[in-house]
Amino acid sequence: MSLVVIGTVAFDAIETPFGKTDKIVGGAATYAGLAASYFYDKVKIVAVVGDDFPEAEIKDFNAHNIDTEGLQIKKGEKSFFWSGKYHNDMNSRDTLVTELNVLADFDPIIPASYQDCEYLMLGNLTPTIQQTVIGRLHNRPKLIVMDTMNFWMDIAMDDLLKTISMVDVLTINDSEARQLSGEHSLVKAAKKILAMGPKYLIIKKGEHGALLFGEGQIFSAPALPLADVFDPTGAGDTFAGGFIGYLAKVGTINFNNMKNAIIYGSALASFCVEKFGTERLKNLGDTDVAARVQEFVRLAQFTIV
Amino acid sequence: MSLVVIGTVAFDAIETPFGKTDKIVGGAATYAGLAASYFYDKVKIVAVVGDDFPEAEIKDFNAHNIDTEGLQIKKGEKSFFWSGKYHNDMNSRDTLVTELNVLADFDPIIPASYQDCEYLMLGNLTPTIQQTVIGRLHNRPKLIVMDTMNFWMDIAMDDLLKTISMVDVLTINDSEARQLSGEHSLVKAAKKILAMGPKYLIIKKGEHGALLFGEGQIFSAPALPLADVFDPTGAGDTFAGGFIGYLAKVGTINFNNMKNAIIYGSALASFCVEKFGTERLKNLGDTDVAARVQEFVRLAQFTIV
Repeated sequence: MSLVVIGTVAFDAIETPFGKTDKIVGGAATYAGLAASYFYDKVKIVAVVGDDFPEAEIKDFNAHNIDTEGLQIKKGEKSFFWSGKYHNDMNSRDTLVTELNVLADFDPIIPASYQDCEYLMLGNLTPTIQQTVIGRLHNRPKLIVMDTMNFWMDIAMDDLLKTISMVDVLTINDSEARQLSGEHSLVKAAKKILAMGPKYLIIKKGEHGALLFGEGQIFSAPALPLADVFDPTGAGDTFAGGFIGYLAKVGTINFNNMKNAIIYGSALASFCVEKFGTERLKNLGDTDVAARVQEFVRLAQFTIV
Repeated sequence: MSLVVIGTVAFDAIETPFGKTDKIVGGAATYAGLAASYFYDKVKIVAVVGDDFPEAEIKDFNAHNIDTEGLQIKKGEKSFFWSGKYHNDMNSRDTLVTELNVLADFDPIIPASYQDCEYLMLGNLTPTIQQTVIGRLHNRPKLIVMDTMNFWMDIAMDDLLKTISMVDVLTINDSEARQLSGEHSLVKAAKKILAMGPKYLIIKKGEHGALLFGEGQIFSAPALPLADVFDPTGAGDTFAGGFIGYLAKVGTINFNNMKNAIIYGSALASFCVEKFGTERLKNLGDTDVAARVQEFVRLAQFTIV
């Protein structure tokens, strides 16, 4: 049994008020795969890169027990590249450069060894490609988690709705939930979105935490208040990867386990933003994660007598 | 021993996407006093109204065990009047009318019977008037909670800082915390604001809940996700009144009790917004409050094993 992550593996160049980077490794599948690897040792990536992608980075995935057989390397082509600059409040950013490169005609290949997929993480990507991956798995995974963004709501709503109808858990942010549902109240938005197919909806609210809707219940998870957010890039992917990785570890899908999965995902995301790119995420000890989760416990717990 | 609430007792005319009201009773002391009365039976109000203020409304305070000896009634003058219109997202509003009337030369009189004040709630008001009230109490109360707003930061920062230096707990919203401290990170903002004097800082984040800082700890309280916010007027005052009322009831000031006080204050505020003005707040049963608090427990609790 395995956890398959599909998404981008790419180069980012990032500028924040704290500094800027040259091309560093990023991408939804990179962040989600690394995050999941802290909980589950059978993480497998489906993605595409060009032959400019460093061999050492692939070895780094493998060192985290991440299977890269599904990572296509296109000879003579270049990897997807994104460059962005964050504003002072770190909540908004400008895209400076988007070079699709190998992503332009990405045809996700599922190796035979990936057909044991029990948990499927559909990282943010063209909705039709997300659908293709589901179609190419011989057995419907036990759990499909889908991340997406407003960009697809703007240009491919019908495809997006089709994909949403096929998944178990959708993760989007609050403004995307409002856009997708046409409702301002997140309670009403959640009701409409759950009627589109998913059994669970996670609304990510950045520094305000996250809301989980499903089984007629609501869970409100806090975000860890941070003195400095160094680089928010990949935080949402890290959250999603930690979330599904934790669920793959515990193996039982229910509301209570999802609550804890959100706390573990949030803990991983809180590490992600402490340094540029994947730097902090690549070098976490097990006690780091456990200690950070206890900070969430202290932050949120109260006892009514 | 008693809980003294100072603030406005006034008329509001409110327009929201759900409807509009004629002049109804509002004001910070009205909301805070009513909220506190659900936890503590020795609530005493300091405020001023004109002789246009209905006798029946004063009787209503008394029916909630709220002492109105400190409520001055100015013959031949009119009560403070505010009129506002909320935008569709309910998070922003336009002020249509502000008539200070009796508030223009409000000189807060502390009746002798109020000198047993142990808990003091300084509702949002001119900072110098808040200071005057502290000065006119013969003994420094055990706990002083102060609410304020960006308006005073804009026009009376020095007076505001002086008053802030005299209190134990300050409650402001997130944008006000950023304005007051000059820091975007709420962690950094809290550190600077706690250095201004208060031992505790509560940052209200509306639909995103609230943060409590103090004793080197942070507590993140959720807000109850609501399908409809009918009228947000008075929610912050209700929160503050419920907060200090609960602390007056338990009698011991520490971080743990403050966490619960925030939950109780949030529960009261969640009722407040369900109807126009004080309508919902005036008619709560004890089991209503207890049941709502249990919704907060279900919303926020998780167990890491």
